[in-house]
Amino acid sequence: MDMTVSSGALRAFMERVFAAEGFCARDAQRIADVLMLADLFGIESHGAQRMMYYHRNIASGSVNVKAQPEIVRETPVSVMIDGHFAMGQLSASFAMEKAIKKAKTTGVGLAAVRNSSHFGIAGYYTLLAESEGFASFAMTNTGPIMVPTFGREMMLGTNPLAFCMPADPVPFWFDASTTVVTLGKVEVHAKRGKAMPEGWTVGEDGKTCTDAAQMNASILSGGKGGILPLGGEGETLGGHKGYGLGVMVEALTGVLAQGLVCPEMSGAHGDHTSHFFMAFDPAMFGEAAEIRARMSRYLTMLRESEKAEGCSRIYTAGEKAFAAKALRTERGIPVEENTLREMDVIAGELGIPKLERQE
Amino acid sequence: MDMTVSSGALRAFMERVFAAEGFCARDAQRIADVLMLADLFGIESHGAQRMMYYHRNIASGSVNVKAQPEIVRETPVSVMIDGHFAMGQLSASFAMEKAIKKAKTTGVGLAAVRNSSHFGIAGYYTLLAESEGFASFAMTNTGPIMVPTFGREMMLGTNPLAFCMPADPVPFWFDASTTVVTLGKVEVHAKRGKAMPEGWTVGEDGKTCTDAAQMNASILSGGKGGILPLGGEGETLGGHKGYGLGVMVEALTGVLAQGLVCPEMSGAHGDHTSHFFMAFDPAMFGEAAEIRARMSRYLTMLRESEKAEGCSRIYTAGEKAFAAKALRTERGIPVEENTLREMDVIAGELGIPKLERQE
Repeated sequence: MDMTVSSGALRAFMERVFAAEGFCARDAQRIADVLMLADLFGIESHGAQRMMYYHRNIASGSVNVKAQPEIVRETPVSVMIDGHFAMGQLSASFAMEKAIKKAKTTGVGLAAVRNSSHFGIAGYYTLLAESEGFASFAMTNTGPIMVPTFGREMMLGTNPLAFCMPADPVPFWFDASTTVVTLGKVEVHAKRGKAMPEGWTVGEDGKTCTDAAQMNASILSGGKGGILPLGGEGETLGGHKGYGLGVMVEALTGVLAQGLVCPEMSGAHGDHTSHFFMAFDPAMFGEAAEIRARMSRYLTMLRESEKAEGCSRIYTAGEKAFAAKALRTERGIPVEENTLREMDVIAGELGIPKLERQE
Repeated sequence: MDMTVSSGALRAFMERVFAAEGFCARDAQRIADVLMLADLFGIESHGAQRMMYYHRNIASGSVNVKAQPEIVRETPVSVMIDGHFAMGQLSASFAMEKAIKKAKTTGVGLAAVRNSSHFGIAGYYTLLAESEGFASFAMTNTGPIMVPTFGREMMLGTNPLAFCMPADPVPFWFDASTTVVTLGKVEVHAKRGKAMPEGWTVGEDGKTCTDAAQMNASILSGGKGGILPLGGEGETLGGHKGYGLGVMVEALTGVLAQGLVCPEMSGAHGDHTSHFFMAFDPAMFGEAAEIRARMSRYLTMLRESEKAEGCSRIYTAGEKAFAAKALRTERGIPVEENTLREMDVIAGELGIPKLERQE
């Protein structure tokens, strides 16, 4: 059962929690802002549902509440940041804002971050650049979950790649893991006792596995097998392409930032991710308004193209998210019962008022 | 039946052809170099097999032999190029070389090209940057072949994305279309009278089609249906992610360069593509040798990780290509009978000596 809470109440609660965790008001607002956007966009896996995870990482010391991201190398077009195990949302915002600032001066800014932690949805950071009219990328490595093509060990993370290009009425906002699915979908199938489609995961022999409960337990315990790259098992449906995209993200994050690479992320370092950001000004290539209009026109062509039989709509990336945001801002955000219980536990442990339920 | 030809003879023939087409010696060498790399890497679809296609595009005037790529906008980190319908290999090399030159000064270089044409393998250009120790991207849009998720019209190209990161003993060299397969694989199944796997193409109703002959004919005639994005039909296996990646490539090529977007590429403009290149110096983020060593180490971890049952090897992107290059440089390049016949026709039409066959 979901309960609907107002976005104002949820945001206020998140800010209370992160202030009580020890963050300054500005940092607490930033973290809440990233989580809220996920819930507003309908990406429940990365919103309020993640609060218990962050709460535990702060308690364990995996995340350092007092850490300040530090610039360790800098050029007019780039910045290398050591996060010192700060909350990922703080290191990541700091990094993308530096990249944007550089792009305002030179046209482009690149930022790499090491020793960070889970930063929420990658696409949040691309929207910081979008609000300046810039195109941008955001990527992160994560702990092990993806099995390489022809392998059976989890050697890569979900390794999401986000890209955003300004357009109207909504930007082209792409944010996707390079795995075929994320763990959340395996969990949902496990909870419902449903078999998974072939092509999502391989078991401990490295071969197709459709047993969600078994797979979920195996992944959580760090066993053999794991989630397949986008494109599935082997090369027939392009699994080697998804695997390659996953390695590309690792090359631009853990490797380039000289942080931990995926297989090194375990135990106390399980969440110590690295990120990559890039923002650039389309005006380097032509009139910004003209390029924006061309992007909008192309997205319209896609949406208006003929639908497959039985399908009523073709989406462009970001469309669903922005529609959800408009709806949820007005009508409130559905939050799972279990997540609500977790938020009550967090409030209790921190000695702060619980989330106000909507009447 | 394939015939083996020496790489020296094949290269000499290609240079003869392009010189006879009207290119200066330097340009003829460059075009041959791009095609040769594809044949050496074992990517037959983009090597000698493409010569008849280029020959026809030159004859029709779609490609302008005398065109010189022109810089129309420039900053210290970027360059916008109008290809004036030159051979794609020439505009693309010009663009990547400018990006590399800028990266040598500022750390990063971006290049967009419009009014270009088919440029061969995207990954060729990333190797120009790799030889300087730089990481790089190369992308291009192409004529219509990909159907958007829930659609039935070809609204995107194969839209390949190439990325290269220096490493030893071979770089991480990734070059993949954002479709599940390219037309070549559909053609091969059609020729052999074999059904295609589900998840490659949709027919004119926008639903799964496994009939290769029918699909091949339909695509070539610009009918309804087409090849699916990486991830296949619908959203179950992540088809919307491949579709999003395809749009990302279009945003960075046709849109950003203000050239034709995919659905506008037809008839006389069927091959008038746009490209995007980016090169950057890893030394902006740390010691280049250290980052290179870290990349090499991670690739080794991947290759040495445990194999799936029945699989003897895990590859990293580029490994197969570089192994093929070593072998083919020494032992020669297998060329299809049909391609050999086409090369003889080209030689006849241009009045130049035919390709020398190996004894």
